Amino acid sequence: MNPFLPSLNHLLDIWLNEDIGRGDLSSPAIKNCVRSAHWIAKKPGVFCGGPLVKEIFKRLDPSVDVHLLMKEGESCCQNQRLIELEGSAQTLLLAERTALNIVMHLSGIATATSHLVKELEGTGVKLADTRKTTPGLRVLEKYAVRCGGGLNHRLGLDDTAMLKENHLAWSENIQIALDAIRAQAPWPSRIIVEAETAEQAKEAVIAGADGVLLDEIPAEKLHKLVPQLRQLAQSNKNNQKSRQIIIEASGVDATDLKAFASTGVDLISTSAPITRSHWLDISMRFEAASYKPKTPC
Amino acid sequence: MNPFLPSLNHLLDIWLNEDIGRGDLSSPAIKNCVRSAHWIAKKPGVFCGGPLVKEIFKRLDPSVDVHLLMKEGESCCQNQRLIELEGSAQTLLLAERTALNIVMHLSGIATATSHLVKELEGTGVKLADTRKTTPGLRVLEKYAVRCGGGLNHRLGLDDTAMLKENHLAWSENIQIALDAIRAQAPWPSRIIVEAETAEQAKEAVIAGADGVLLDEIPAEKLHKLVPQLRQLAQSNKNNQKSRQIIIEASGVDATDLKAFASTGVDLISTSAPITRSHWLDISMRFEAASYKPKTPC
Amino acid sequence: MNPFLPSLNHLLDIWLNEDIGRGDLSSPAIKNCVRSAHWIAKKPGVFCGGPLVKEIFKRLDPSVDVHLLMKEGESCCQNQRLIELEGSAQTLLLAERTALNIVMHLSGIATATSHLVKELEGTGVKLADTRKTTPGLRVLEKYAVRCGGGLNHRLGLDDTAMLKENHLAWSENIQIALDAIRAQAPWPSRIIVEAETAEQAKEAVIAGADGVLLDEIPAEKLHKLVPQLRQLAQSNKNNQKSRQIIIEASGVDATDLKAFASTGVDLISTSAPITRSHWLDISMRFEAASYKPKTPC
Amino acid sequence: MNPFLPSLNHLLDIWLNEDIGRGDLSSPAIKNCVRSAHWIAKKPGVFCGGPLVKEIFKRLDPSVDVHLLMKEGESCCQNQRLIELEGSAQTLLLAERTALNIVMHLSGIATATSHLVKELEGTGVKLADTRKTTPGLRVLEKYAVRCGGGLNHRLGLDDTAMLKENHLAWSENIQIALDAIRAQAPWPSRIIVEAETAEQAKEAVIAGADGVLLDEIPAEKLHKLVPQLRQLAQSNKNNQKSRQIIIEASGVDATDLKAFASTGVDLISTSAPITRSHWLDISMRFEAASYKPKTPC
Amino acid sequence: MNPFLPSLNHLLDIWLNEDIGRGDLSSPAIKNCVRSAHWIAKKPGVFCGGPLVKEIFKRLDPSVDVHLLMKEGESCCQNQRLIELEGSAQTLLLAERTALNIVMHLSGIATATSHLVKELEGTGVKLADTRKTTPGLRVLEKYAVRCGGGLNHRLGLDDTAMLKENHLAWSENIQIALDAIRAQAPWPSRIIVEAETAEQAKEAVIAGADGVLLDEIPAEKLHKLVPQLRQLAQSNKNNQKSRQIIIEASGVDATDLKAFASTGVDLISTSAPITRSHWLDISMRFEAASYKPKTPC
Amino acid sequence: MNPFLPSLNHLLDIWLNEDIGRGDLSSPAIKNCVRSAHWIAKKPGVFCGGPLVKEIFKRLDPSVDVHLLMKEGESCCQNQRLIELEGSAQTLLLAERTALNIVMHLSGIATATSHLVKELEGTGVKLADTRKTTPGLRVLEKYAVRCGGGLNHRLGLDDTAMLKENHLAWSENIQIALDAIRAQAPWPSRIIVEAETAEQAKEAVIAGADGVLLDEIPAEKLHKLVPQLRQLAQSNKNNQKSRQIIIEASGVDATDLKAFASTGVDLISTSAPITRSHWLDISMRFEAASYKPKTPC
Repeated sequence: MNPFLPSLNHLLDIWLNEDIGRGDLSSPAIKNCVRSAHWIAKKPGVFCGGPLVKEIFKRLDPSVDVHLLMKEGESCCQNQRLIELEGSAQTLLLAERTALNIVMHLSGIATATSHLVKELEGTGVKLADTRKTTPGLRVLEKYAVRCGGGLNHRLGLDDTAMLKENHLAWSENIQIALDAIRAQAPWPSRIIVEAETAEQAKEAVIAGADGVLLDEIPAEKLHKLVPQLRQLAQSNKNNQKSRQIIIEASGVDATDLKAFASTGVDLISTSAPITRSHWLDISMRFEAASYKPKTPC
Repeated sequence: MNPFLPSLNHLLDIWLNEDIGRGDLSSPAIKNCVRSAHWIAKKPGVFCGGPLVKEIFKRLDPSVDVHLLMKEGESCCQNQRLIELEGSAQTLLLAERTALNIVMHLSGIATATSHLVKELEGTGVKLADTRKTTPGLRVLEKYAVRCGGGLNHRLGLDDTAMLKENHLAWSENIQIALDAIRAQAPWPSRIIVEAETAEQAKEAVIAGADGVLLDEIPAEKLHKLVPQLRQLAQSNKNNQKSRQIIIEASGVDATDLKAFASTGVDLISTSAPITRSHWLDISMRFEAASYKPKTPC
Repeated sequence: MNPFLPSLNHLLDIWLNEDIGRGDLSSPAIKNCVRSAHWIAKKPGVFCGGPLVKEIFKRLDPSVDVHLLMKEGESCCQNQRLIELEGSAQTLLLAERTALNIVMHLSGIATATSHLVKELEGTGVKLADTRKTTPGLRVLEKYAVRCGGGLNHRLGLDDTAMLKENHLAWSENIQIALDAIRAQAPWPSRIIVEAETAEQAKEAVIAGADGVLLDEIPAEKLHKLVPQLRQLAQSNKNNQKSRQIIIEASGVDATDLKAFASTGVDLISTSAPITRSHWLDISMRFEAASYKPKTPC
Repeated sequence: MNPFLPSLNHLLDIWLNEDIGRGDLSSPAIKNCVRSAHWIAKKPGVFCGGPLVKEIFKRLDPSVDVHLLMKEGESCCQNQRLIELEGSAQTLLLAERTALNIVMHLSGIATATSHLVKELEGTGVKLADTRKTTPGLRVLEKYAVRCGGGLNHRLGLDDTAMLKENHLAWSENIQIALDAIRAQAPWPSRIIVEAETAEQAKEAVIAGADGVLLDEIPAEKLHKLVPQLRQLAQSNKNNQKSRQIIIEASGVDATDLKAFASTGVDLISTSAPITRSHWLDISMRFEAASYKPKTPC
Repeated sequence: MNPFLPSLNHLLDIWLNEDIGRGDLSSPAIKNCVRSAHWIAKKPGVFCGGPLVKEIFKRLDPSVDVHLLMKEGESCCQNQRLIELEGSAQTLLLAERTALNIVMHLSGIATATSHLVKELEGTGVKLADTRKTTPGLRVLEKYAVRCGGGLNHRLGLDDTAMLKENHLAWSENIQIALDAIRAQAPWPSRIIVEAETAEQAKEAVIAGADGVLLDEIPAEKLHKLVPQLRQLAQSNKNNQKSRQIIIEASGVDATDLKAFASTGVDLISTSAPITRSHWLDISMRFEAASYKPKTPC
Repeated sequence: MNPFLPSLNHLLDIWLNEDIGRGDLSSPAIKNCVRSAHWIAKKPGVFCGGPLVKEIFKRLDPSVDVHLLMKEGESCCQNQRLIELEGSAQTLLLAERTALNIVMHLSGIATATSHLVKELEGTGVKLADTRKTTPGLRVLEKYAVRCGGGLNHRLGLDDTAMLKENHLAWSENIQIALDAIRAQAPWPSRIIVEAETAEQAKEAVIAGADGVLLDEIPAEKLHKLVPQLRQLAQSNKNNQKSRQIIIEASGVDATDLKAFASTGVDLISTSAPITRSHWLDISMRFEAASYKPKTPC
C-alpha cells in the first residue's frame, strides 16, 4: 500500500517551492552537519503518508535517511515515535514543514475514516468516499481513505459515469441518457445513477444502471426500496441489461450509519473524512544534546 | 481583494485534470446547449474564492458567464444564492466539482477564522495564521484567512527568518544565529525567535530579534513577561539593534483567546482555521424546467 | 464527439515547439497578410481530428478562422475538401505540418478501425482496442478508434484491473489475486482475467472475474468454451460473486474476424488499427491567384 | 548512437502517466519481490530504442536492471531475445507496456527504413525522411530512421529554410523570397526550394538555392533535368551565389526507388517509413517457474 | 521581425512569477481603475523587444492596451517616447518591472551590436554572434543581435556542427572527425572547424569543412592565409567535397574590426554585444494629473 | 552560501535544452571515453556559481566528477585554475557552454559588486541591489551580488511593499496608501516609500514607513535631510508607528559613492552590478596529451 506515483514528483516540487520559495533565510543560523530527528504523534490516530516523507526529503537530498517506524494505516497512540530521520541539518529543516503538513493532513483523514468504518463493523456494509476532495490532492486523499479502512468510489469523471441530478434534468430520460453514455464509454466502465426518489431509482434499474446512489432518502424508506430494486434487477435477466446492481446510500449523518447499514444497501458514501476532519497533530523533535552525529560539525 | 495570481493558472490545470482525466464519461448524456445554474449556501458562513470560480470555468470555456453575487469575505446565510452561471451544459458539469471543492474548502477556512477573530474583537490583538497549510494551497489558504479577518504570518521560509526550537538546539546561541542570518538576508526581512521560556525570550530581544513568538507559555506568565520584553527592547535604543518588537503568542486554545489577548501581546498565531475547520456546504443547482436558454437545444 | 481535453493544451505546445523550435526560418519569404487555404483528402477514408486543428491554429493565433467541413468519424472520398482556413499567411504555414500530421495519423486509425468494424457488421460483436498505443497519444488514438466505430477497452492501468500472463505466473492463484485487487480497487472498477487455456478461463469465472479475455484460443475451441463460461457465471448466482461476464477474444487475425464473431464472444480486441495502419493522405492547398483576401497585403 | 536527450525526461513522464494514471489497480495481485523477465522479437526486423527502455524503467525505479542484448540498428530474427530485465515485479509490470510501445513503434520505423535503404544499395543515392512525423516523437522517429540506415532531412522549421508550394504562391518570386530568408537566417543554415516543374527548379538554382527538391517529377524527366541543374549551379561560379547544389527527389513510390536513383539525384526523401510502417512485434516474457530471484519473496 | 514564439509563453510565466511571487503587497495602495502610462528612453540606442511587452501585459490581463511607437531595431534618441500603455493600474505596475527588464536588456544588446556593425559598414564583412548567451535567453538575445544589424551564428549544438579545440584534441584527426559527423547529421547541416593555426585551417578545408573559424590569428597572418584557404577549397572541385567555404575570424578586439575586415574573411564573430554590453536605460512614466481615464475611479 | 534551490532544476533543463536542442551534432567526432578538463580565469575577478556547475553536469550524467577549487565569492587572479572535471568526453562538451555561460555571467556581477563595495569600505554604509535583474535569473543574480559583498534589497513584489512614484501619483496620499497596504500584508513585511523630495520623505516617515528610499536627491541635500528624518522617526515614539527607519539613497553614480556614504544613509541601492557589468572571462581547457584517463578509450 504505497501511494507513490510518478505523477507525484511534480506535485512534490510545487509543495517544496511553495514553502522554500527563493531560499530559507534561516539556514545560516545552523551549521550544515549531519543531525538526527524523529517524529512523534501528539494525539492518537491512524498514520498515513510515510512513503511521501521519504520522497519529499530524498527530492531535496538523496542522502537523508528516513526510517519509517509505522506501517501505512497502522494506529498510533499519543507520544508514539513515528519516523526517525538523519541528514544534513539544513535539509531536515527545509523539508520539515512540507512533510509534516501532508502527513498530518492525510493521517487526519485516515483517522476520521477509521472512526466511521468502526461504526459499520460487522454490518458488511462498506464506507466509500466521494469526489469532494481538496484540489490537487485527490489521489492522496483517496489513498488516506483506504488507509483508514474505507473503500474508494470513482476516482474522477473518466473512470465511471454517474448521472446526477443535473444530468437527469438536462436529458430526456434515464434510458436515453444511459444508452448515450454506453455508446461512447470504454466497455469496462460502469454507469451509476443518483436517485432522489424511489421512482428514479426504479427507472434507473430498469434502464440497466450498474449502480444506484440513493441520496438523502430516509432509512425507513430504504428498508422497503432496496429489496424492490434488487428484485427489479433480477427480473432484467432475460434482456441484455445489467442484473447485478450495487446500491449505495449518501447524505447519511455520521450518527445514523448503523441505521442505514441495516437497510440492505451495499455501501454508504460520505465526504466527511475529507471535508469534516481535523489534522492529526504530529511534531518533529531534534535529538537531545547527547546525540553524536556520524559526521562531526 | 482578488486572490488570482499568474502562477495559479498551472494549479488550475492540475485540479481540472485530476477530476476530468481522460474525459467526462457522462457528457454524452446531455445535449451541449446553453444552460443556467446557481450556487447556494447550505449553511451560513463567510464566502471566499469567487474569482477562482471565474478562472476555473473560463479556463475550460471562455464563453461561460459567471456572475458573483457575493463579495470576498462577505457573510452568507443558509440558502443564500452565491453565484449565477450560464454556459454550455457539458462545461458547467465538467468544472462543477473542482470549483465547488476549492470554494467550499476556502470558505470553510474563512468561516472558522471569522469565529476566532470575533473572539478577539475589541482587544486590539490580531489573529495570525502559520505555515501549517495544505500542500499546494498555501497562498490561497492564507488568502482565505485574510477574507475571514485574520492577518497573515510569514508566507514561506524566504520572506521572514524564524529561529525555531531546532535552530536554537543546533546553533551556538541566539546572538550568533541571529547575526549569521542578518549577514545573508535581504535587508527588509525581519527575524523572529520562537521562545518557550522567559529566558529565551529575553535573550532574543537582547540579540535584536524583530519579533518574539512565545510558544505554549501560560497567560498568567505572559502578563509579567510581555512588559519586561517591551522594556528590554526600549533599552536597546542606544545600540543599533531593534527597538520595536512584535510579541506573539502561540499554542493557544480557542477557548483561551480572550485570556491571552489581555496579556499585552500584539498577536496570537494559530493553525486552527486551516487544520481544524470544516468545509462550508455549498451546492450547484440547475434552473427549473421553465428556464429558457438563450440558445435553443 | 469532441476529443478536446484541457490536458491536451500542454501536448499541443510540445508538438508545435518540436516543429517550430527557435523560429520558422522560411517566414521572411512571405508577406504576413491574410490568406486562405483548404485541406483535401488525397485518398478516401474516415476523417478524425478536426477539433484539434482548430485548437492548434488558435494556440498560435486566435484570429485564424478554421471551418470544418466534415463531422468527426465521417467518411470522405478522394479529393474531398475537408477544412477551410483563413488567417495570417505566416501562421497558416507555421502550424500546417503539425496539424496535418496529427489528423493524418488519427484519420488513418479511424479508417483502419472502420474496415474491421465493417467485417463485424450484423454479428452484434464489438471491436475493441488495447493499450498498444503510441506513447503520448493514448487518449487521442482511442478517440480515433471510437470515430472509426470501435469500442474502447480500458484506458490505462488505473481504471480497470487486468490479470495478465505475468500476474498469474507471479501470484499464488487467480482467486487470491482477484481478492487482493478487489480489496484495494475503487468499487466501480472491473477486473478482467486474460486466459490462454479453458482451465484458466473457468478458474477466472469461478473466482468472480467481471470479464475474461481469451487470448489466442482458436475459434473452434471458443464455440464450446464460451457457453460453458456463461453457464458457469450464472451458477455463481447464489454466492455474492459476479454473474454478469463479458467475454472477449484477442490475438485474432483480421481475416478471421467473422469466424470468431460467431463463437458467441461479446467483443474482439485488437491493436491492428493503431499498430498496423497507414496515415490517411491529406494536403493543404493555397487558394488560386484570383483569391482576394479580406485584408490587402 | 544513443537517442537520449535531457528533453526526453519530460516526455517519459507524460508517457508513464498516461498509462499509470492514478495507479496500477492490478498491482496488489502480485508480491513485490525481485523478478526476472526478457523481451523477444516475434518477427524479424531492425531493433531500435534500447536506451529508452533503460531510461523508462530507471525513471520508476533506479534499481531495475536492464541488460540490452542488441545494439541500436542491429537486425534481429524471429524469437531472438532482445533485452533481459530484473527488478521489482510491480515495477516491471508498471512500465512494461510503455517501454514496449515505444520500442515496437521505433523498431517498426527502423525496419521499414532498412527495406527501402536496401533498394538503394550500391546506387550512392541516400534515403532521407521528411517532417511528416507523429506529433511528440519527431526526434525519436528521425533517430529510428538513422538506425534503419536512412539520412535525416531538416529537423524542424528552424534549422533549414525550405520554400514550398505555398511560399512560392504567396511571395513575389524565388529570388526575392530567397534573399529575404538569407537576410534573417543564421549564416550556416541552408535554403532549399521545392520545385514541381523544371522551370521552378532552374529559377531556384539561379537564385542561389542550396538544394532543390524535385517533387513528383517523373524519373524520365529527371534524367534530363538533373545534369542541367548541376551545370547551372557551376556557372554561378563568378557571382557570389551557391555553386554546390544538393538535388533530391520526392513523391517517389517504393517500387520506383531504383529508377529514380539512376537519375543522378543525391537523395530521395520519403515519409513512408513513418507514415506507412507497422510496429515490430515484441513481447515481454516472465522467467519460467524454475527461476530463483536474488531476493526471496 | 517579430521575436515571439509559442515556447516563450512558458518563459513569460517564469519571469512574471519570479517578480510577483505570492502577490504584489503594494497593490492595495492604489485603486484599480484604468490608467495611462508611457515609456521613454533615457539614453539614445536601438530599441528591441516591443512585441514582448505586448505579450507580457496581455498574459496578465488581455484588456491592457499596448501601443508600440517604435519598430524593432529602430534607433531612438534620449527622452524619446517608445510605448504607450493604458489599462488597470494594478496590472500596469504588476508587469512594469518584468517588461522593462527584458526590453532594457535586449535593447542594450541591439545597441552594442549596432555600434560594431557600424565599424564594418562598407567592408562587406558581416558581424556574427556566438553561443555565449545568458542562460534562458538564447533565442531572444540572438534576435536582439539581428535587430542591431548583426548576423546569427549557429543557434545551438543541434543545427550546425562545430569542431572546436577539445574535439580536435580528443579525436584522431580532422578528416575522421568530420566524416563521423557527416554520417549522422541531417544532410542540410553544415560543419565548421575552429582552427588556431594555418595548418589546422588547411587540414579542415581539405577534409571538406563548410566553414573555418580562425580563432585569435593576427590580421597580418590572415591576409595571407585567407586566399590560400579559398584556393584550396576551389581545388577540391574534382573530388566530392565542399568547394564553397565560409571563413570567419574570432577573438577580435572591437578596435581591430576594420583591420580584420580587410583580410578577406566573410565574417567576424564576437560575443561582445552580449557579454560586454550595458542595458539601455528606459523608464515608465505615469500620465500627468490632468489625465482623464476612460473609466472613472 | 550555496545558491541551489529545488526550483532551479527546472531552469537548468531550460538552459540545457536551449543549447542542446535536438542533440549535439558534433558528438560523433569524439570517442565517449572518460576525459579530464579544467576551467581557468582569463581575467582576475570574484568567482561565483560553482555549485551550479555541479548541478548542470550532474543533471546530464551523475557520474561526472566536478571538483571546485574556489569558494563562492573568492577572488581569483588571471590564469587561476577554478574547477577540475572528469567524465565522459561527450557530456563534458554537452554542458560546457551552458555551465560556462552562467558562471561567467554571475562572476561578472560578483566582480562588479565587489568593486563598488570596496568604495564603501570603512563607511559602514551597505551596497544593495534592486529589482532590475535579467528575467529568469533574479534569485541567482541576487546571490551573485551577495557573493560580491553586497546586500539584497527586496526579492520581489511579494516580500516587501514599496510605494513608488506611480503608486503615489495614483493614490490619495501616503498615509492612506500605507494603511491600505498594512491592512493586507503579512505582519512581518516592511513598507518602504520612494521619495524624490524632502517633503515626500518626511510625509513617509510620519505615516510610519519602515524605510525611505531617497531617489536622485543630491548628497548635499541629504546631509541635512537624513538627520531630520531620523529625528522625525524618533518622535513617533509614543504613537504606535514605526520608530526605526532605514534610509537609503539611489540614483547614485559609481564615482559619487563615497560622497553619498558620508550623508548618514544606511545603504545605497544600485542596479549597476547587474545592468552595467561585463562577464568574467573563463575558459575550459582539456588536459594535455600525456593525460591518462582512468578508463581507456
